[in-house]
Amino acid sequence: MTDLLVRDLAQLATPAGTGGPLRGSELRAVEVTEAAFVLCRDDRIEAVGPMSALPAGLGDVEEIDGRGLAAIPGLVDCHTHACFGGDRVNEFSLRAGGASYEELHAAGGGILSTVRATRAAGEEELVSVTELHRTWMRAHGTTTFEGKSGYGLDHDTELAQLRAVRAAGGVPTWLGAHTVPPEYDGADAYLDFALAEVLPEAAVLAEAADVFLERGSFDAAQARRYLEACRDAGLALRLHGDQFTESGAIQLAIELGARSVDHLEATGPDGVAQLAASEVTGVLLPASALFLGRPMPPGRALADAGALIALATDFNPGSAFCDSIPLVLSLACTQMKLALEETLVAATANAAHVIGRADRIGRLRAGFAADIVLLDASDWRHVAYHLAGDVVHTVVEGGAVAFRRTA
Amino acid sequence: MTDLLVRDLAQLATPAGTGGPLRGSELRAVEVTEAAFVLCRDDRIEAVGPMSALPAGLGDVEEIDGRGLAAIPGLVDCHTHACFGGDRVNEFSLRAGGASYEELHAAGGGILSTVRATRAAGEEELVSVTELHRTWMRAHGTTTFEGKSGYGLDHDTELAQLRAVRAAGGVPTWLGAHTVPPEYDGADAYLDFALAEVLPEAAVLAEAADVFLERGSFDAAQARRYLEACRDAGLALRLHGDQFTESGAIQLAIELGARSVDHLEATGPDGVAQLAASEVTGVLLPASALFLGRPMPPGRALADAGALIALATDFNPGSAFCDSIPLVLSLACTQMKLALEETLVAATANAAHVIGRADRIGRLRAGFAADIVLLDASDWRHVAYHLAGDVVHTVVEGGAVAFRRTA
Repeated sequence: MTDLLVRDLAQLATPAGTGGPLRGSELRAVEVTEAAFVLCRDDRIEAVGPMSALPAGLGDVEEIDGRGLAAIPGLVDCHTHACFGGDRVNEFSLRAGGASYEELHAAGGGILSTVRATRAAGEEELVSVTELHRTWMRAHGTTTFEGKSGYGLDHDTELAQLRAVRAAGGVPTWLGAHTVPPEYDGADAYLDFALAEVLPEAAVLAEAADVFLERGSFDAAQARRYLEACRDAGLALRLHGDQFTESGAIQLAIELGARSVDHLEATGPDGVAQLAASEVTGVLLPASALFLGRPMPPGRALADAGALIALATDFNPGSAFCDSIPLVLSLACTQMKLALEETLVAATANAAHVIGRADRIGRLRAGFAADIVLLDASDWRHVAYHLAGDVVHTVVEGGAVAFRRTA
Repeated sequence: MTDLLVRDLAQLATPAGTGGPLRGSELRAVEVTEAAFVLCRDDRIEAVGPMSALPAGLGDVEEIDGRGLAAIPGLVDCHTHACFGGDRVNEFSLRAGGASYEELHAAGGGILSTVRATRAAGEEELVSVTELHRTWMRAHGTTTFEGKSGYGLDHDTELAQLRAVRAAGGVPTWLGAHTVPPEYDGADAYLDFALAEVLPEAAVLAEAADVFLERGSFDAAQARRYLEACRDAGLALRLHGDQFTESGAIQLAIELGARSVDHLEATGPDGVAQLAASEVTGVLLPASALFLGRPMPPGRALADAGALIALATDFNPGSAFCDSIPLVLSLACTQMKLALEETLVAATANAAHVIGRADRIGRLRAGFAADIVLLDASDWRHVAYHLAGDVVHTVVEGGAVAFRRTA
């Protein structure tokens, strides 16, 4: 039984409530305690409160001096493609220089270039690169990350990706329908293979299934076929939708009871209203919109309409080489006009809901996981205010110090 | 005599040429050497080249293993307000939640709130906070920074700010005409004071003078009066111009032979053409535009027209709480469609030109300062590609290791 006490914190901020996601006016319900402590036992939080309520007689406890620091829950990145081979720096460079999509394609860019590199990497390298990416994410305060497959698109590599995400401590999602690999004659033929040959094993390794519903990838009928088969195999459902065009992803997500529909850059007022009336979470990925120079998703409209929203990085080599949730919070505040409180809830309690863990992570609350970010500022709001700053001081994960920034 | 050898670098990238700024097609002139070394003697670079050209018989030299790393010149942040008291996190929070300018003002926000906090800080605290900010900037690769006054606007605090910037190793600029402090009845009355009482000492401490030419601050006639007096006192000239409205800053800068006009978010085609035909550098501050949710400056049009351009953070507590040049490069690539090579030149050789140092910093070249950034990637372009990533591995400043990231 090991105890850890974070004491004399300048401030502690956590989403309100005992579990589950927040929406509507509750999306701003962040509880702030000045002069606070967090007491952890093993990998759980034992107690949280003002220093005046610190239990007496704690005995021999490891202590962290929180003076000058603010604590928030460990951040939850509920949408990443953190397991991949190679990089796409050349594609980024060409796009920055003004190259068109066609020129990028001709230069060998796009998802398929990462598929080639990921297939070539081998499982050992995939584990090692995913672990490296996890250390990057952790240095920005992420203590739980979801990681998708989708760069294998063959039997062995898809399963190797799911195992690599799991080995690196992530929550694996089978993105078996990311794009159609070149060896198949169309999406239906590829789905014949994927659902027959990969799903049975993917359903054991993954917690959820995901599909890229977009013109040129998988249409609504194909997405439905894939998702229904995955649901029948026991997986939770998610969709990439409305990134470039409104393609019916929101309607399909609602009908199938999916956990989330992610992207939504192209979502119009009808989609906003439908999502707001549903139990599906809209996962907003502003770093991806920024990276591609595209419009932001309608975050303000979704929040105002009462939709469930979450924020994530979309970390991937092509459209968002970004592992920083704090940057995502800054973008949500400045580009989507979300309130700081809304962004914190969206990247903790609500992101935890998207990966089915809102009862145990995403809040600083007794009984929840001892995942704590100590910010190098006495006001928690610096997490978004300090744009691209080194704002994370210490990360406690499962009751132990997992990262400490040294200057 | 101390020697430092950075050896076996995966890559080394530096602006071409022997000194001075680059423009037009030369703005993309980045020379890349694979398998490279940099040899430093004391605070200067002695030699740079491929490992095959490494001089023999170096004797007892301190070595840095550059395997897997890429070297670029120490970054030059030519526009910061890094010396200030307090913060403006509350204003950021209100703006994120949708507050209007008037509401922010009513809540006590704006430049004058920082003026109050800076006046209250005292010189010792100003030195210490500027030194802290320098360590933040250095962790993102900045080895030379310019720092402005302008949050004192009284005799003692303006001079204290200039001394604090100098004490923290920065290049001081007297921004005596930032805004009109409340104790004066209008801009002219304030300038009467500032030019008579502050300029004589500011001219000794600072290298340049700067003015905020904008509706509600100083108009073109007042800016001219201020700048001419500063020029006569021996200071180089700079202007904040065209941030919200086109106010004649470009024309005035050209007429007075200013080094730069900074911001330019509101500059139209005529201004672009005029700047391009001049020797004045346009300093682009995309983090500021992002932070305020405003349009980006016309960086692509300026580069295409052949203008001298530089990039900087605008680091300040109100409109850009951002000390990261790498983030600025990412924004320049994704939001202004500048090529990666253009962004590197703009934040090294051209930024050095803006602060009168293009003959000695901003390039990895024999005779130049031994200011080197080692990136945690084998391709230098990750500096912009890795959005908000921990991409800086080691910083060498004046021939000595000044920062090393530890995980």
